[in-house]
Amino acid sequence: MSLSLYEFSIPVLLRGLSNLSSLLDKGAAYAAAKKFDSIVLVQARLYPDMHPLSRQVQIACDTAKGGAARLAGLEIPKHEDNEVTLADLKQRIAKTVDFLATVTAEKMNDAEGRSIEIKTPNRTFKFTARAYVTDFVLPNFYFHETVTYALLRHNGVEVGKADFLGAIG
Amino acid sequence: MSLSLYEFSIPVLLRGLSNLSSLLDKGAAYAAAKKFDSIVLVQARLYPDMHPLSRQVQIACDTAKGGAARLAGLEIPKHEDNEVTLADLKQRIAKTVDFLATVTAEKMNDAEGRSIEIKTPNRTFKFTARAYVTDFVLPNFYFHETVTYALLRHNGVEVGKADFLGAIG
Repeated sequence: MSLSLYEFSIPVLLRGLSNLSSLLDKGAAYAAAKKFDSIVLVQARLYPDMHPLSRQVQIACDTAKGGAARLAGLEIPKHEDNEVTLADLKQRIAKTVDFLATVTAEKMNDAEGRSIEIKTPNRTFKFTARAYVTDFVLPNFYFHETVTYALLRHNGVEVGKADFLGAIG
Repeated sequence: MSLSLYEFSIPVLLRGLSNLSSLLDKGAAYAAAKKFDSIVLVQARLYPDMHPLSRQVQIACDTAKGGAARLAGLEIPKHEDNEVTLADLKQRIAKTVDFLATVTAEKMNDAEGRSIEIKTPNRTFKFTARAYVTDFVLPNFYFHETVTYALLRHNGVEVGKADFLGAIG
């Protein structure tokens, strides 16, 4: 059986984005039931100098978007970080899903031979495409999806592992 | 370039386990510097009915151990859940690393054709080996590594994304 980098990236990220969006639905329903403004959840943090939920969702989306674009050799679409509400964040996820859906297996045919560079103010990271997926894109994506989950759970939203994993097996 | 399920599982989990162990070191150093008993961190929770840090580490380890064993068609080693201190949890991680190190690429040669069943009290999950890695093992592992990180960060330990990802690029 032959495996492709596509299988380990695009469908995996699409599944994660869908689960992330469902987590936000649970947050919105909880705020409505408890009659508080759901912006409290959007702005929630686990520690004063840690990013709030809004930024966790934005980074999860940007990790998926940048990952898909770099693996396929496409320009990374720009999405402004201007979300204020849970509905805005769901839209941000939807835009990201729309982009990832255009990155077909065919567009990733050359991905495995690609080398990926990421420049940050402090240093430049150089990855093989495989290492970019396993060491950067997936752990980063799951990190921000999980912190979003943890922020909701910490604030009383009744989310469970099944919401995080989505439909499996 | 041909990809193997081994590359997307064993080295990835070994890297994650190493990062998890380093996160616990930072927790221990913080407790020592602030002169509090680090068992407070071991027992920390983000919500009263959420698992404490100790259980997060145990489940991360069991996800890695069960994942490696099932993919290679080996019996899953039993590790008792009896850890009390951060040092105990580091030992648990080390035992898990020792087991994963025995699961070589050669032992995973047949993994891709395997189907994986996981029985829980409520239902049985059936996965292809690839879906088991992408939809179950990796998201679960990163979930529990991230919640461990979040618990430390929430309690003031100065861990950052670089600690979570480990040496990259």
